[in-house]
Amino acid sequence: MNKSIVPLNELISQFARLPGIGNKTAQRLAYSILEQPKENAKAFADALINAKEKIHFCPVCGSLTDSDTCYICDDALRDHSVICVVEEPRDINVFERVREYNGLYHVLHGVISPLDNIGPEKLKIKELMARLADGTVKEIIMATNPTVEGEATASYLSRLIKPMNIKVTRLAYGIPVGSDLEYADEYTLTRALQGRNEI
Amino acid sequence: MNKSIVPLNELISQFARLPGIGNKTAQRLAYSILEQPKENAKAFADALINAKEKIHFCPVCGSLTDSDTCYICDDALRDHSVICVVEEPRDINVFERVREYNGLYHVLHGVISPLDNIGPEKLKIKELMARLADGTVKEIIMATNPTVEGEATASYLSRLIKPMNIKVTRLAYGIPVGSDLEYADEYTLTRALQGRNEI
Repeated sequence: MNKSIVPLNELISQFARLPGIGNKTAQRLAYSILEQPKENAKAFADALINAKEKIHFCPVCGSLTDSDTCYICDDALRDHSVICVVEEPRDINVFERVREYNGLYHVLHGVISPLDNIGPEKLKIKELMARLADGTVKEIIMATNPTVEGEATASYLSRLIKPMNIKVTRLAYGIPVGSDLEYADEYTLTRALQGRNEI
Repeated sequence: MNKSIVPLNELISQFARLPGIGNKTAQRLAYSILEQPKENAKAFADALINAKEKIHFCPVCGSLTDSDTCYICDDALRDHSVICVVEEPRDINVFERVREYNGLYHVLHGVISPLDNIGPEKLKIKELMARLADGTVKEIIMATNPTVEGEATASYLSRLIKPMNIKVTRLAYGIPVGSDLEYADEYTLTRALQGRNEI
C-alpha cells in the first residue's frame, strides 16, 4: 500500500469495510475509481448519501422505502390477507424475483438469538401483532432462514399467532431443484423424506 | 430488485459498475450501506470525492500522489540510477510490498496494443526518455506484464533505450514459487527451462 497517499488509503479502507471485500479487492476497486472521470466518483458519492438519506423503513411492514409506506403495502392489487414474515429487507427481493407470491411482507429485522443477546423484544414483533388485530390477515407464512435461530423464531411466533385463529405456515424443506441427491446433507434429506408428496 | 426505490437502485448500479462486482454482490453491498449509520455512508462518500480530487499523477514517474511529486521520486535514499517500468500505478504497490527493490519507477499508463488502437504515442514514453537524458539512469527494468502486449512494449522500449548505453533488463520468467510443476503451462515451463541457472 502506498503509505503516504492518505486519500487513496482512506478510499481503500472504506471499500475494505464492505462485507466480503478483502484488502486486495478494495485496492482494485479504489484504483478503478481513480481511473474513471471525476463525475463518476461524484455520482457514486451522491448515490451513497442519497440512499442513506432518502431510504427508511416502511412503518407498516419494516421493509425499505423512499416514500411514506412501501410500494408493496400501498399496492391494493396484492393479497392483503397473507403476510410473509422475513428476517431482513433484502429477503423481500428474493421473493419478489420469483413472482410467485402476491401477498404482503413483514420484516422482523433479525431473529431471536440468545447467544447474541437478541430477544423477541428487539424484533418487530409488536408491529406484526398490531397488523393482525383487525382480522384481515388469514395466513402468516414464516420465511425466516432454515437455521437454528430462524427455526426458533418461527416457532416462537407461531405460538403467539395460532391462538388468534390465523393459519401459520412454514416454507417447505427439501432438496433444491436441479441439485444432485449425492450432495444433499442428511438433515435436508430427512426433511425431504418427511415432507414427501404423492405424485 | 425493488423497482420503485430509486435511491437504492441507483446505489446498487453504482456498485455494479465496479470491476468484478456483479449485480448480486452490488445488492449485498448496497444493503450493507443502508444497515450502517449515516456517518459511515458520509465518510465513504467523502473518501470517494477526496481521492478523486486530491490524487493526481506524479509529473516525473506517472504514479499516483497527493503532493507535487510522489514520495518515491522524492526519496533521496532510493537508488536513482535504476528505473522499473510498469504498466499501471497499482503495479508499483506489488513491488513495494516485496521490499526487494529500492530504485525508482516509471508508469507507462498502458501497453502498446494495435488492436485497441494504442500506439507508443499514447503511452508515457516521451516522459521516460526525458528522464534518461541527464545520464543518471544506468538500468531500466522492464516490468510490463508477461502478455503479448507487455512483451511487445518491452521490446519496443528496449530498442529505443539500448542505443543510449543504458542497460535494459526484463523480469525473469519461470515457475511461480510454491506452485506445482503439474500445473505449469507449457510456455512458462519452456521459459523456465531456457532461463535455468546453475546451482
